[in-house]
Amino acid sequence: MINAHRILERIELLATCSKLSKGVTRLSFTKESMDAENLVIDWMQQAGLSVRKDEMNNIIGRYEGRDPDAPVLMIGSHLDSVIDAGKFDGILGVIAAIEVVQALINSKVVSEFPIEVISFCDEEGTRFHTTFLGSKAIAGTLKEEDLQMQDDAGISIASALNDVGIDPTNFRAATRSKKDLLGYLELHIEQGPVLQEKQLPCGIVSGFASASRHILHVEGRAEHAGTVPLTSRKDALVGAAEAILFIEKNAKRNNGLMATVGKLVVEPGASNVIPGFVSFTLDVRDIIESRKLRFLQEVFEKIQEICHDRKLVFQYERILEIPSVMCSKRYVALLEEVFKENDIPALEMISGAGHDAIAMSDITEVGMIFVRCKDGISHHPDEHVSLEDIEMGTRLLLESVLKIVMNEGV
Amino acid sequence: MINAHRILERIELLATCSKLSKGVTRLSFTKESMDAENLVIDWMQQAGLSVRKDEMNNIIGRYEGRDPDAPVLMIGSHLDSVIDAGKFDGILGVIAAIEVVQALINSKVVSEFPIEVISFCDEEGTRFHTTFLGSKAIAGTLKEEDLQMQDDAGISIASALNDVGIDPTNFRAATRSKKDLLGYLELHIEQGPVLQEKQLPCGIVSGFASASRHILHVEGRAEHAGTVPLTSRKDALVGAAEAILFIEKNAKRNNGLMATVGKLVVEPGASNVIPGFVSFTLDVRDIIESRKLRFLQEVFEKIQEICHDRKLVFQYERILEIPSVMCSKRYVALLEEVFKENDIPALEMISGAGHDAIAMSDITEVGMIFVRCKDGISHHPDEHVSLEDIEMGTRLLLESVLKIVMNEGV
Repeated sequence: MINAHRILERIELLATCSKLSKGVTRLSFTKESMDAENLVIDWMQQAGLSVRKDEMNNIIGRYEGRDPDAPVLMIGSHLDSVIDAGKFDGILGVIAAIEVVQALINSKVVSEFPIEVISFCDEEGTRFHTTFLGSKAIAGTLKEEDLQMQDDAGISIASALNDVGIDPTNFRAATRSKKDLLGYLELHIEQGPVLQEKQLPCGIVSGFASASRHILHVEGRAEHAGTVPLTSRKDALVGAAEAILFIEKNAKRNNGLMATVGKLVVEPGASNVIPGFVSFTLDVRDIIESRKLRFLQEVFEKIQEICHDRKLVFQYERILEIPSVMCSKRYVALLEEVFKENDIPALEMISGAGHDAIAMSDITEVGMIFVRCKDGISHHPDEHVSLEDIEMGTRLLLESVLKIVMNEGV
Repeated sequence: MINAHRILERIELLATCSKLSKGVTRLSFTKESMDAENLVIDWMQQAGLSVRKDEMNNIIGRYEGRDPDAPVLMIGSHLDSVIDAGKFDGILGVIAAIEVVQALINSKVVSEFPIEVISFCDEEGTRFHTTFLGSKAIAGTLKEEDLQMQDDAGISIASALNDVGIDPTNFRAATRSKKDLLGYLELHIEQGPVLQEKQLPCGIVSGFASASRHILHVEGRAEHAGTVPLTSRKDALVGAAEAILFIEKNAKRNNGLMATVGKLVVEPGASNVIPGFVSFTLDVRDIIESRKLRFLQEVFEKIQEICHDRKLVFQYERILEIPSVMCSKRYVALLEEVFKENDIPALEMISGAGHDAIAMSDITEVGMIFVRCKDGISHHPDEHVSLEDIEMGTRLLLESVLKIVMNEGV
């Protein structure tokens, strides 16, 4: 019932809708984006869906159920990319969803509930430094002022919407009501190495980790590298190095917690000057929020101690806090059933990355299937998913959708 | 015999010969530099010296000895500054040298040997990214192609010389022959905290540390900070942090060796991406070259081990190697005598910073006195030397000069 070759062909074709770059670069509301939208609209129509664009440029292809007033099961993902991205992130979920409904239509399955294939306009937030633009509009959590956010050329979201023929003052009309929705299912590449390590084609997302982001500042004293003995120094970088190693050590003690120092700047940053100031980011993700808070407290206390011993000054500030989100327990149980029916161990996974399902969880039950990607590589031209895994992921999505829409919404 | 107030007044006046900036900014062959030169020439002439500019724009004020053909004792330092510098670096040595000769003339001391007060045109190398431009010209180690080095505006040294009325093709005429010179003595601020820590006004430089500079590269794998478990990561920054701590630990085991990681760059450098690549500098200084080489070997072996364990790739390249230089043993002994006569413990110190004396050591015996500076701060507007220490330093220089020129060159 699933034509994996067709899915892959479509993914390849969508990859050509890109700015000239090393990988796929398709930011929202651009020429490349519109080319991709037209292909998706075309494929939805070929499958037999009635297609519309909503007031945030999300593309929605609807397969009517027995009762048009019944709540809708949405399935899909996003169409935009980061810069120099791979071909599968987001796209796989959209194309697989079209394939799923195509299969239902081909098999003349009459659904109890309407199914809508959704292609969100902007999940990555690359262009406007946003997150979940399309899904937040649908969930009703997008704010008027968010539309004033600008891209690097100074173009606001409102103005970009105008450019593609959409009246930005109408954006609230994209919002769906809770009672209008049955649930949201998303198929997405894992973007991590766990499935490959466990030799599994797919996994079940049980929740999305909470995330905290801080900037840490360590201040010492910039001095001549040749004239100040090691015992008299206040070297901010050596202090920061000690902090970074403690962060790693403490994170490893908490299985499942992710902690990353991704950005670090040294001042003045000359080879013959002792570092006087270092600032670095600390990104921590954990599904268990209380554990994350305890971890952060331990880290800050230890760095305070390190800095005290080294006569350095330590300060930090929080710049981001995203709470954890759980997937629907019923959907997780249903997916487990489907996985078992296909002889696939049902590995429950925590997503450390953000997905549209997080925004959708504000108004409906969400479920999510991860598909193995080669070496965990994503947001990179080398991102790769095998044909077999595409087929398996799409089949699992199809069977899950069937279970939901044929069983009166689970 | 020493008028420390006059020295300080002159230092303050020279500090006004600066580009508008937070501190003193007086690069070579600029308007500010010429203003300073004119003051120095004026003071030299007032003291009774016959003054000339040589073919590299060094200012030389000569006090004739009994035999005009006898070898010359040079004393002095440099007139240029870094950006936002203090008032004392270099300047103190020039003004103190004028004061010393003034004292000799006032006391009607007839010297056995000619004494020349030298004000080198460019020691810091801030403008053209050179080192010891003035003293290298005198030592004959400056090369034709060095004059093609350019400042940030693309102006070469040759063209800058032209701009101040000096024919750059003549630069070799500035070179002095070995037999023409008796020795070179320099008074300079310490630029480090050792004298303050030991509560000494001055110290004796016994030599200049050798310096090695390397760039180290640690390569891992840039991945999503939220999706890759800690145990699967190849985090280049955590590896670099471990390396930095080992460098500090190993340097502390070798008393007197200086090791500094002053510059560090993380790529891609985003808060939500695991660092895939880190490069950092390693500046190592030691008077004992063999110990420095062993230290470097231990460091590189250990980092190789760290990177192997973390599945990272380690590479390094040497970008600078300066051999160590010893001061004249006779001058060190003579300075010790003078220090003792003044009831000052004769602390022998290794200079980790470069000075014109290094370049001068190629053609003559060199000796150097360090003067305490507040908190070891230098290359900064807060650079400070007390009036008492200026007086003591200048007196020690005067008495050392007297011992040399009255004792047939020691």
